[in-house]
Amino acid sequence: MEFDLIDRIRARLARRDDVVLGLGDDAALLRPKSGHWLVAACDVLNESIHFSADDPAEAIGHKSAAVNLSDLAAMGAEPAWALLGLSLPDADSAWLDGFLDGFLALSDRHGLRLVGGDTTRGPRSISITVHGWVPEGAALCRSGAQAGDDIWVSGTLGDAAAGLQRAGEGAQADWLRARLQRPTPRVALGMALRGIAHAAIDLSDGLLADLGHVLEASAVGARVEVDGVPTSAAFEACKADPGQRRAWQCAGGDDYELLFTAPRDRRLDVEQLATQQGVPLTRVGVIEAEPGLRPVDAAGQPCVIAARGWQHFAEPT
Amino acid sequence: MEFDLIDRIRARLARRDDVVLGLGDDAALLRPKSGHWLVAACDVLNESIHFSADDPAEAIGHKSAAVNLSDLAAMGAEPAWALLGLSLPDADSAWLDGFLDGFLALSDRHGLRLVGGDTTRGPRSISITVHGWVPEGAALCRSGAQAGDDIWVSGTLGDAAAGLQRAGEGAQADWLRARLQRPTPRVALGMALRGIAHAAIDLSDGLLADLGHVLEASAVGARVEVDGVPTSAAFEACKADPGQRRAWQCAGGDDYELLFTAPRDRRLDVEQLATQQGVPLTRVGVIEAEPGLRPVDAAGQPCVIAARGWQHFAEPT
Repeated sequence: MEFDLIDRIRARLARRDDVVLGLGDDAALLRPKSGHWLVAACDVLNESIHFSADDPAEAIGHKSAAVNLSDLAAMGAEPAWALLGLSLPDADSAWLDGFLDGFLALSDRHGLRLVGGDTTRGPRSISITVHGWVPEGAALCRSGAQAGDDIWVSGTLGDAAAGLQRAGEGAQADWLRARLQRPTPRVALGMALRGIAHAAIDLSDGLLADLGHVLEASAVGARVEVDGVPTSAAFEACKADPGQRRAWQCAGGDDYELLFTAPRDRRLDVEQLATQQGVPLTRVGVIEAEPGLRPVDAAGQPCVIAARGWQHFAEPT
Repeated sequence: MEFDLIDRIRARLARRDDVVLGLGDDAALLRPKSGHWLVAACDVLNESIHFSADDPAEAIGHKSAAVNLSDLAAMGAEPAWALLGLSLPDADSAWLDGFLDGFLALSDRHGLRLVGGDTTRGPRSISITVHGWVPEGAALCRSGAQAGDDIWVSGTLGDAAAGLQRAGEGAQADWLRARLQRPTPRVALGMALRGIAHAAIDLSDGLLADLGHVLEASAVGARVEVDGVPTSAAFEACKADPGQRRAWQCAGGDDYELLFTAPRDRRLDVEQLATQQGVPLTRVGVIEAEPGLRPVDAAGQPCVIAARGWQHFAEPT
């Protein structure tokens, strides 16, 4: 990491006892946690693709931490360390300070400590690798879903997609926009789901696309009640036709809620978790042995969703 | 990591027994090594800054692995895992295949296994986080240099800078160019220096700049014989004035050789290492208690080097 920016960052870091050596050498030195697996994920956010040039730096910092923490949450992992690869067109310390405001506020809340990275010149881009710990054998993988499992989602869906399209008015529009720019990673929920959930994924690409990843990894199918997807009051108030609303909720992406599957006999445990965590948890379907993803409407009739989620290199279908 | 590119990558990966779960979930699951510290580093390479748009994809892949392996080498770490954040303007599978040819050939040689990452659309940029292991307490840090230590460098210096300026002719020019595009990370040397070296750093920013980082971290000074810097035959044959040659060798950067300090009474061990490893190791100076970096010429007279190394956000001085 370069030396004109590194001191600004180092001055602001919280302590972790398992960091032997943090920023400022060729690499960080870190103490592993015995009896645990290391969980590691990487996400890249590029200007004009994942955020807009006029988004506040603080919101970009928040989102950069959030999307990575969300990957840890989806594995049931406890956050530990992050490395930050930052490309900037110039050494803009005001932008960096704003970015760090957002990044560190959210990281600190979850015990995630910045331990290394690289800053360099280039089109604005943020690449983060996060690390966490999960007890051996207790990780939530995409491949664990079993026929008969309930399919649950946390929070409400479609808000980020509606926010991206600047749907709604006044305070409701602002709220939807905040859901897009400042998602809430479900870290505590993910950890609490160890031993309850069979499979989990975070909803970054959209409900149907991400559920599709779980189905593929688990070699199962699913029936999803698309009209039973949890909906926020702000989303409810949007003026948009039903097809558009379904597309936002089922294929919109960027909500960073958790989708997980759990056996039917754990429903009470899941409902208790919702209360304990203060996060709505809603059943939206069921895992079936027959491969394929079967969206149905409130009447149980098959229905078609216009878009199938964010494909990073594909033309929209 | 996105699903149209991930299968191309996954099909090509070597095995490691400590990878519980690699590519394809929200995060990788990895087994720590007991009695060891985790070593983690991150480097970003951007088009037009760190490589040129017409560099072969295979060379970019090689260099991306090399600069990260070099960070592990500088800590004395044994390579383990990498995560790759890749931004590409389009889903160019021919480019990706070439990149992977270079990246995986070098990674495989050093037991470095790709376990995760993210591919997304954006200006071409490569962000890699590498992990390795070092026995507890045995890492080579920048902060360990002591007054009286010899200062050693591996290999030859200035080749990459001369290659960048397209110095030399014919086969010699090609060789210099290859030193720039395809650096050799000194992984085995770094591991062998555990217990011998007091401090180490890799030469990415240039001899004087990187030695400066060691001096600052160790709160010591140094005297460096700039005319004693090891020189390749191809560099020797370049037509360039002495000031230019010194600048390339002392401030050029991008050589990815190791600089390390070791006590005087370990000279024989270092010389034996050079033979064992087949890498020239050359004494270029001595650590002194008095802070400051004092370059001297062959006659021991103070001399001035025109440039002081790569500063990522500064104008050239």
